[in-house]
Amino acid sequence: MASTSNILFFFFSIFFISSISCHKHHPLDPLTPFEFTLIRNIVRNSYADSNQNLAFQYVGLDEPDKPTILSWQSNPTTTKTPPRRAFVITRLHKQTHEIVVDLSTRSIVSDQIYYGHGYPLMTLEEQTAAIELPFTYPPFIESLNMRGLNISDVVCSSFSVGWFGEEKSSRIIKILCFYIEGTSNLYVRPLEGITVVVNLNEMKITEFQDKITHTMPRAEGTEYQASKQKPPFGPRLNGAAIVQPDGPGFKIDGHTIRWANWEFHLGYDVRAGPIISLASIYDLEKHKFRRVLYRGYISELFVPYMDPTEEWYYKTFFDLGEFGFGLCAVSLEPLADCPANAVFMDAYYAGQDGKPIKISNTFCIFEKHAGNVMWRHTETEIPGEVIREVRPEVSLVVRMVSTVGNYDYIIDWEFKPSGSIKVGVGLTGVLEVKGVPYTNTDQIKEDVYGTLLAENTVGVYHDHLLNYHLDLDVDGDANSFVKRNLEMKRVTDNSSPRKSYWTVVSERAKIESDARIQLGLKPAELLVVNPNKKTMVGNHIGYRLIPGLVVGPLLSDDDYPQIRGAFTKYNIWVTPYNKSEKWAGGLYVDQSRGDDTLAVWSLRNREIDNKDIVLWYTMGLHHVPCQEDFPVMPTLSGSFELRPTNFFERNPVLKTKPPKHVHWPNCTTKT
Amino acid sequence: MASTSNILFFFFSIFFISSISCHKHHPLDPLTPFEFTLIRNIVRNSYADSNQNLAFQYVGLDEPDKPTILSWQSNPTTTKTPPRRAFVITRLHKQTHEIVVDLSTRSIVSDQIYYGHGYPLMTLEEQTAAIELPFTYPPFIESLNMRGLNISDVVCSSFSVGWFGEEKSSRIIKILCFYIEGTSNLYVRPLEGITVVVNLNEMKITEFQDKITHTMPRAEGTEYQASKQKPPFGPRLNGAAIVQPDGPGFKIDGHTIRWANWEFHLGYDVRAGPIISLASIYDLEKHKFRRVLYRGYISELFVPYMDPTEEWYYKTFFDLGEFGFGLCAVSLEPLADCPANAVFMDAYYAGQDGKPIKISNTFCIFEKHAGNVMWRHTETEIPGEVIREVRPEVSLVVRMVSTVGNYDYIIDWEFKPSGSIKVGVGLTGVLEVKGVPYTNTDQIKEDVYGTLLAENTVGVYHDHLLNYHLDLDVDGDANSFVKRNLEMKRVTDNSSPRKSYWTVVSERAKIESDARIQLGLKPAELLVVNPNKKTMVGNHIGYRLIPGLVVGPLLSDDDYPQIRGAFTKYNIWVTPYNKSEKWAGGLYVDQSRGDDTLAVWSLRNREIDNKDIVLWYTMGLHHVPCQEDFPVMPTLSGSFELRPTNFFERNPVLKTKPPKHVHWPNCTTKT
Repeated sequence: MASTSNILFFFFSIFFISSISCHKHHPLDPLTPFEFTLIRNIVRNSYADSNQNLAFQYVGLDEPDKPTILSWQSNPTTTKTPPRRAFVITRLHKQTHEIVVDLSTRSIVSDQIYYGHGYPLMTLEEQTAAIELPFTYPPFIESLNMRGLNISDVVCSSFSVGWFGEEKSSRIIKILCFYIEGTSNLYVRPLEGITVVVNLNEMKITEFQDKITHTMPRAEGTEYQASKQKPPFGPRLNGAAIVQPDGPGFKIDGHTIRWANWEFHLGYDVRAGPIISLASIYDLEKHKFRRVLYRGYISELFVPYMDPTEEWYYKTFFDLGEFGFGLCAVSLEPLADCPANAVFMDAYYAGQDGKPIKISNTFCIFEKHAGNVMWRHTETEIPGEVIREVRPEVSLVVRMVSTVGNYDYIIDWEFKPSGSIKVGVGLTGVLEVKGVPYTNTDQIKEDVYGTLLAENTVGVYHDHLLNYHLDLDVDGDANSFVKRNLEMKRVTDNSSPRKSYWTVVSERAKIESDARIQLGLKPAELLVVNPNKKTMVGNHIGYRLIPGLVVGPLLSDDDYPQIRGAFTKYNIWVTPYNKSEKWAGGLYVDQSRGDDTLAVWSLRNREIDNKDIVLWYTMGLHHVPCQEDFPVMPTLSGSFELRPTNFFERNPVLKTKPPKHVHWPNCTTKT
Repeated sequence: MASTSNILFFFFSIFFISSISCHKHHPLDPLTPFEFTLIRNIVRNSYADSNQNLAFQYVGLDEPDKPTILSWQSNPTTTKTPPRRAFVITRLHKQTHEIVVDLSTRSIVSDQIYYGHGYPLMTLEEQTAAIELPFTYPPFIESLNMRGLNISDVVCSSFSVGWFGEEKSSRIIKILCFYIEGTSNLYVRPLEGITVVVNLNEMKITEFQDKITHTMPRAEGTEYQASKQKPPFGPRLNGAAIVQPDGPGFKIDGHTIRWANWEFHLGYDVRAGPIISLASIYDLEKHKFRRVLYRGYISELFVPYMDPTEEWYYKTFFDLGEFGFGLCAVSLEPLADCPANAVFMDAYYAGQDGKPIKISNTFCIFEKHAGNVMWRHTETEIPGEVIREVRPEVSLVVRMVSTVGNYDYIIDWEFKPSGSIKVGVGLTGVLEVKGVPYTNTDQIKEDVYGTLLAENTVGVYHDHLLNYHLDLDVDGDANSFVKRNLEMKRVTDNSSPRKSYWTVVSERAKIESDARIQLGLKPAELLVVNPNKKTMVGNHIGYRLIPGLVVGPLLSDDDYPQIRGAFTKYNIWVTPYNKSEKWAGGLYVDQSRGDDTLAVWSLRNREIDNKDIVLWYTMGLHHVPCQEDFPVMPTLSGSFELRPTNFFERNPVLKTKPPKHVHWPNCTTKT
């Protein structure tokens, strides 16, 4: 076995060498199938004796240091491509190993055991193994029989258990099961009351509980598949297609995307999903690309449910750190998830055995022609002439959908020629519901912690709190965070017929504590500026954050889930760049104890003025389910915008010519 | 003259009779050219002796009472169409007349003189007359000469003067002038320091002031016309067209629009612009249309500037009540203001002489294919199968653009098959700027009340505060306003490992004061429910408001502009329906004193529980201009959503089939 792998190893090395020899790839490109295989072999070789038990929990690019990347970017052709390294987290003999692999030297740079709290990302394979256990577990089978349920219609799913102050923790998950008799919508038919606890180290059921409660919701009306629906159908929507006679306006070179005045790199990570790097915009007046965003990605997604009862209290999920947003990425459906003019891109991650696994159509990239107006003006005041100038808006969208169990998250990064980056998230999919004895609200006397959506079906209250890591480099990496407070001024000296007006009072954050902000309390503009650069008339060059879906935590600070999700305490945090500070909820989130979160790092209260800073922004919503969300939920969306603010000398799309008018193609289309 | 008009009158009467004899028109249809002419003749005849001086300030439909409309709607074929009436405001001999004209009997129902504060909408004709006065006014010409300006390059514009506590007021406006030498962008080259006051009754200049200040910004870099730009151009955007093989999915019958599961009436008013009435949605399960919105329109737009100095303090505009949002509607440009699949609709208003004037392409209506997802789910948990169901989103947009002097407002009403109505506003156009001596911010030592955008050019701080009149009739007209507060609960009895969670505590507003809300202070869901109807499982049928662009006033309550714009004090107000309460800033807003605003009506603190109620919602923004907004501003947009919330028994688009896939038409398009 070892010998075979050595041969394999040799074999792949050759491939790999040849693949790096040509200078095509970008140092931030996600790991390739070749590289995954190479990593696997390197790591397995170093554990030759215990290959069998070796589990790859996380394999991702260990991206080069920022200065290395920036100097490479400044001169990609002559500068030697930075060494490729991978960061690997494995589980072996009940221990978590952190391994750094150097792909160019094909060696292990470091390998250390992690002794802290929390566990790594769960693999799909171990979750799959765990949810199969109940089916051979007599007490479970007995429970099904007592309920008169057909075992072949039972589907189980795995749930992270969180942390609630336990001294000791072992690597466990909870298994809940659902009934698909008569419906494919499993989440709406929970086997309420049955809880199975699986120890992932032993891969054994260590606890089983059945508080027999006969309140399974009916299957009727829960199906969402078109093929299973009965008439009447509707409402009817007509189809459409986009025609682009000149083809798409963007070019994809590896993972680098160039469109209009934008250039950026689209990466993939099994934990984060899409990673936007090195986003720069071409300045027509300065005749050069200018840096905007060094790196942007979702760093954590906290989804706490608000039912404190025994079967539900622990449901306080961290979708990125526990389940992996990239791991849960789903293949996008052409003409449905993305319009006809979309181009698709695949992604690869390492399975539990380290072998590369492909997700096809992970991303789609398309030009959005939504019928909006980029800018316009009609001038009627000049006698004898009417001036009308209108520029229709076209933008570029990068989309990924991550389906974490029941919920589908539509993640959009939209780039506008005006310099705005609009980041959107759409929530759809299926609610997590609770089986209850009630068939009508008038039977309900106590708090059921949710909305009665259908007979015996409560949609439990919960939050969706997304934290974005936004490493803005506004025209360079030394930046400052500025809060422009809008303050009312009273006119007291009768110098004006007015009694009041408002003006701008700017505060420039010196240390981290100056930049912690709960949104909505007072009117302010939030900017990241380059304090070393000014426009010709002397304004600091900057970008501003226009927030959306303002939300704050409604859990007490001392509550365990809130300690783990403490990054939600403020909507805005600013930290000095630190390569190791990637995940707002910490690196090991499963059963974490909150000792490695943004809130903890930020306690050091470091200097952030005129430094390479990172803006952390949390947006989201408190979700009070309603009947329309059942049995599948119409998309609820929100977005925020990063908008140039005195970054350009003037409107950067002033000189954009209207796109060529494409007349309605009078030709038959195949439908 | 009188005889001619009598002949005309007779002539048009015949036309009119024939036009009403066919039962085509809807009682809420805007007045037709025939009707305007008829109204003109009826009114002029009643003032036969003083026709010359008669000015029509406002002519609009005096819509039938709500019960009349509703009973007509319940059975339009057999019910006799309600009588057509017009509400007319004229100025004659320095007095404001309120006239109600009955078109069926061709008679004047009432004619009374208005003695209260404030003046009606200004006509374009009187503003045009006023801005011509300076050109024959020697002191003005002298000022131009002193400045060495070429009079043929001077353009003037009219500005409402507001009210600042004056005891007496006469009907005046201020004239400010601009220089278009070398640019068509007049607003960016103000003749700072010159103020002309015109009395509109006399149509005379009554005041002239010139504080000679030589700080006119340069023309260079201010032009926005494509034809006037020099290379380099860019960024380049590719064109596209939408192909709809089955054509548009909507039908327009007069002013009634039917699309997918929606049906609504699109009206036009010279003051409000678009008026959405009788919006109902078809319920697939109940097999009937259900009422959602009786009437929705923008009731006022308050734009106070924040410069208290002598030349600027009075700039506290009410764009609807002073200038007319419909009057300022501009013709939309096909393929630019609206996509290729848009259909256009004209509008008519009465000129100062009462004759109908046409605005072509006032509205566009189009199906929006933005590439969004209506709902989706990918199911991977069921062993051995992967389910993927995706429904792309298509929505219907009604758009109007109103250009009030320098600013262009893009007003969208978007209807979604899921039952949501998304109301959007886009801000673009040109900033109002102030000429200053400064060429760089480092010269600025005091507050200049704005941002230095270019040399000698300050973009003055201001607000845009839009108030929407939303007369929701959720499944009937007896509705209630419910505030669902989200409140943290602490677990104190160790009944759960959790220490906290949040739950919903609902408050149903009994009287008006219960429903005044400043948004952003505490987490809550805002609903209008029908307390008399429940879903099958017992939830109150409702719609909820999902706010956007949360903004509050930053003027003191006792400041004159704020007294006039007191409706901005709260983002939400709820009043019982009252036909006369249409305009949040009052009926006569020009120089109003705040005695007829939403804030005043609401002092009566009427009962609003289980009544026909109106929701008034203010959204907007504080605008701190930035250099990107110069010389023309990229669209800044915001929106709010009215979303069904336990209105339907379940997801109303569950049974929507995916639209037919239209394959990329492989055919040559004319460009």
